[in-house]
Amino acid sequence: MDSLHIGSYTFSSRLILGTGKFSSSSVMLEAVKASGTQLVTVALRRFNREQPGDDLFTPLTSIPGITLMPNTSGASTAAEAVQAARIARELSGSPFIKVEIHPNPQHLMPDPIETYEASKILAKEGFLVMPYIPADPVLAKRLEEAGCVSVMPLGSAIGSGQGLATAEMLKIIIRESAIPVIVDAGLRSPSEAALAMEMGCDAVLVNSAVAVAGNPPVMAEAFAEAVAAGRKAFAAGIMEKSGIAVATSPLTSFLGTEA
Amino acid sequence: MDSLHIGSYTFSSRLILGTGKFSSSSVMLEAVKASGTQLVTVALRRFNREQPGDDLFTPLTSIPGITLMPNTSGASTAAEAVQAARIARELSGSPFIKVEIHPNPQHLMPDPIETYEASKILAKEGFLVMPYIPADPVLAKRLEEAGCVSVMPLGSAIGSGQGLATAEMLKIIIRESAIPVIVDAGLRSPSEAALAMEMGCDAVLVNSAVAVAGNPPVMAEAFAEAVAAGRKAFAAGIMEKSGIAVATSPLTSFLGTEA
Amino acid sequence: MDSLHIGSYTFSSRLILGTGKFSSSSVMLEAVKASGTQLVTVALRRFNREQPGDDLFTPLTSIPGITLMPNTSGASTAAEAVQAARIARELSGSPFIKVEIHPNPQHLMPDPIETYEASKILAKEGFLVMPYIPADPVLAKRLEEAGCVSVMPLGSAIGSGQGLATAEMLKIIIRESAIPVIVDAGLRSPSEAALAMEMGCDAVLVNSAVAVAGNPPVMAEAFAEAVAAGRKAFAAGIMEKSGIAVATSPLTSFLGTEA
Amino acid sequence: MDSLHIGSYTFSSRLILGTGKFSSSSVMLEAVKASGTQLVTVALRRFNREQPGDDLFTPLTSIPGITLMPNTSGASTAAEAVQAARIARELSGSPFIKVEIHPNPQHLMPDPIETYEASKILAKEGFLVMPYIPADPVLAKRLEEAGCVSVMPLGSAIGSGQGLATAEMLKIIIRESAIPVIVDAGLRSPSEAALAMEMGCDAVLVNSAVAVAGNPPVMAEAFAEAVAAGRKAFAAGIMEKSGIAVATSPLTSFLGTEA
Repeated sequence: MDSLHIGSYTFSSRLILGTGKFSSSSVMLEAVKASGTQLVTVALRRFNREQPGDDLFTPLTSIPGITLMPNTSGASTAAEAVQAARIARELSGSPFIKVEIHPNPQHLMPDPIETYEASKILAKEGFLVMPYIPADPVLAKRLEEAGCVSVMPLGSAIGSGQGLATAEMLKIIIRESAIPVIVDAGLRSPSEAALAMEMGCDAVLVNSAVAVAGNPPVMAEAFAEAVAAGRKAFAAGIMEKSGIAVATSPLTSFLGTEA
Repeated sequence: MDSLHIGSYTFSSRLILGTGKFSSSSVMLEAVKASGTQLVTVALRRFNREQPGDDLFTPLTSIPGITLMPNTSGASTAAEAVQAARIARELSGSPFIKVEIHPNPQHLMPDPIETYEASKILAKEGFLVMPYIPADPVLAKRLEEAGCVSVMPLGSAIGSGQGLATAEMLKIIIRESAIPVIVDAGLRSPSEAALAMEMGCDAVLVNSAVAVAGNPPVMAEAFAEAVAAGRKAFAAGIMEKSGIAVATSPLTSFLGTEA
Repeated sequence: MDSLHIGSYTFSSRLILGTGKFSSSSVMLEAVKASGTQLVTVALRRFNREQPGDDLFTPLTSIPGITLMPNTSGASTAAEAVQAARIARELSGSPFIKVEIHPNPQHLMPDPIETYEASKILAKEGFLVMPYIPADPVLAKRLEEAGCVSVMPLGSAIGSGQGLATAEMLKIIIRESAIPVIVDAGLRSPSEAALAMEMGCDAVLVNSAVAVAGNPPVMAEAFAEAVAAGRKAFAAGIMEKSGIAVATSPLTSFLGTEA
Repeated sequence: MDSLHIGSYTFSSRLILGTGKFSSSSVMLEAVKASGTQLVTVALRRFNREQPGDDLFTPLTSIPGITLMPNTSGASTAAEAVQAARIARELSGSPFIKVEIHPNPQHLMPDPIETYEASKILAKEGFLVMPYIPADPVLAKRLEEAGCVSVMPLGSAIGSGQGLATAEMLKIIIRESAIPVIVDAGLRSPSEAALAMEMGCDAVLVNSAVAVAGNPPVMAEAFAEAVAAGRKAFAAGIMEKSGIAVATSPLTSFLGTEA
């Protein structure tokens, strides 16, 4: 079967969900269930044993088949991210860590230098490291060589809904990568998730587009179907673009055979 | 339920399939079945009672739940299209007619003047007229006023796989139309079909993208799923694009609450 | 020299200016002068002998080297356009007529049926007919056959600044046309005008982008330079796009020859 | 006057030329002259005192008003680039160094880690450092903080002619940068150079698009004019895009005032 392999883990779903920005935890949980996702990312801050009302750890891990991937969102240096990752592993028991280091709160763009530094350290410590990165082919390759289990280049700025603005760079990353390439950030709608899969991405991570949709659980379903459709199309062999029209219908003597 | 209404007909599938360019009739029939389509277009020439080997009428109508929509492909004037439509109705019994008038065999672009003329005549004769047209908002509105049950603007040149190259015009057509708007021609992959639905199209017609795919029946399934996903997203309320990133994760004192 | 030929007229400038939407007539006249344009379009209503303050005819024709092209803007049928054209010829003495027929005041999209009808009549009456049309390859060809001296397909909706949204259709029109193809409507900035020329357009018509610019005369100059640059690039032979990087710099033993 | 300031240098031209890939040195020199550029980049290898036939240093510096910017093309580590930069300064006397570090000869994408490292070192050594980088907003900001005098993000892969594929990232870089932002790599035609300037870039570097044009000197002129036009448009205030058409011509009672 066509499964997604990350480290030693196997997933049948290729849709990863983020848990921020939902109007409530219950809407978020509904969307997670509706999406059929098997991998969910949660900010460290939401592992909150002291204020159970804010805690996402317990409700998420009670959904069957869900693996948690803590993230280091909020970190602005490698040192902060490494510290956050260690705490997250202790609290969650998950070997996954999504390295997110974004010094600028305006656009949350990842810092390539700090991300590379933190990822190297964490990979050595045995984490399954999945770094959120700019769509930078050389950085992606270096992170693979540093032992990351996946790279997560951005499609466009987090929360912007600008879609696959980095498509040309993503194509190069996909062509060269020996580990799964997962588009993270910027996707606005299911068609864009399908397109990412058609291009050869291994999975997509979606958050805002589901969280702020009119109906988040239905949107989560739509993303799940679109990701599956895009993957299926990728496997089925997509036609080439052409500058020249080629007829699909007979053009000559249209009444000829009936005459 | 969210059904597609064309004339007095109701369809649950929003994917219409063309039958040209397949490597064989049996592959085409498999793809039609896999797609779950309920409306299939066939060139008049393929209603062939004298050469049963070429005939598509009998095998297609034996698939449960399929409605045939003959087309006038090959016609280059209104008079030819009207003549073809009358013969097609007699042969097929279908009230639908897809008016296709394209004088230029190089690119098969529709002729707006002849198409308008033929559509007016056929609508008066009681056909359910579905004209293949350029993505021209005023022409679309005039065809609606002339009694067409749907308009079928092109996404891009037939067989080109250029996708929704006419998107800006399609948006205006969709905003103004009181009859279903069905994108016809040019779609290359399921993500483009999903995008058409997200924009508010009522259905899409696909032919080449399925027919020349590596695996046509699987591609037909992928299109069906993508169309459903796009429609679902349209209904669920898609987020707005924004030039400014908005954080999905907490940004301040990332270790604060854990401290 | 590389001149633009329309009918029996020859122009060295390939930038045509519209005269609507300026903050004042004096700003408009300044912009016209700064642009170096030789062909300017004016709505019939602005040939106003009774209210000289509103009249654009006299000041425009006093600029050396300017040819006026009256337009039928405001007409919503062929009959209205034909009537307007005849009055315009009498008032202006210009053999040019820009046929603009747009029934919908919301988006001002051209009506292909009425435009075709009016253009046929006016061409027979000896006008130099330049119709504003949708980017419709078959309509463009039919208007050429009807005796028009140029076709003016829209880049996008008038005043929208959406640029060359119809680029794929424009390419087909350009490839097939034996008369000048002039992109009219939708251009937002000089780079888009340059791109139109690089694609092989013969000229561009700009109005809003100059009229509502911060500094209209400077913007008019910028458009003039960009049109010239785009035409020059078209003539000089533009490189092909490629999916694969090709090195521009030596890659091997970078210090080798210095060692 | 609207000049480009880089370090303590002032340039009136905003077009920088590369010198690779020309069919001959004499064609390259003609193109440089035709472009009016004042800043030209040359690979270290082309400072060749032992094989005067290959040497570009002498002929380029004999063109009045030209400043040379050696580049480290061919380097794949920071150490190699630093070494190359020092040699280049000695040979050329130029304080400028374009840091190019691209480990992969297939696509020549810049290495962000090595580029950052080398740029820090060279800035401390007093070079006017201009690094070729991915379109990565955080990296750009860090290079500014490290003392670079400009950043040179790529539009798309070197030699690909894919144009401003990274536009959304470039916009963020431009918005945040306190030093000149110069688009380097990927531009295919003058319209793209004009667009870069309209977006607010301070300059563009072009090489392949001129070198492989049908007529390189004429193409160089076209780029120079387009860059000037784009800058002028940026200064003149470009109109906003809009989804809704706004009439430029009077819409009501088009014959009213003439009646």
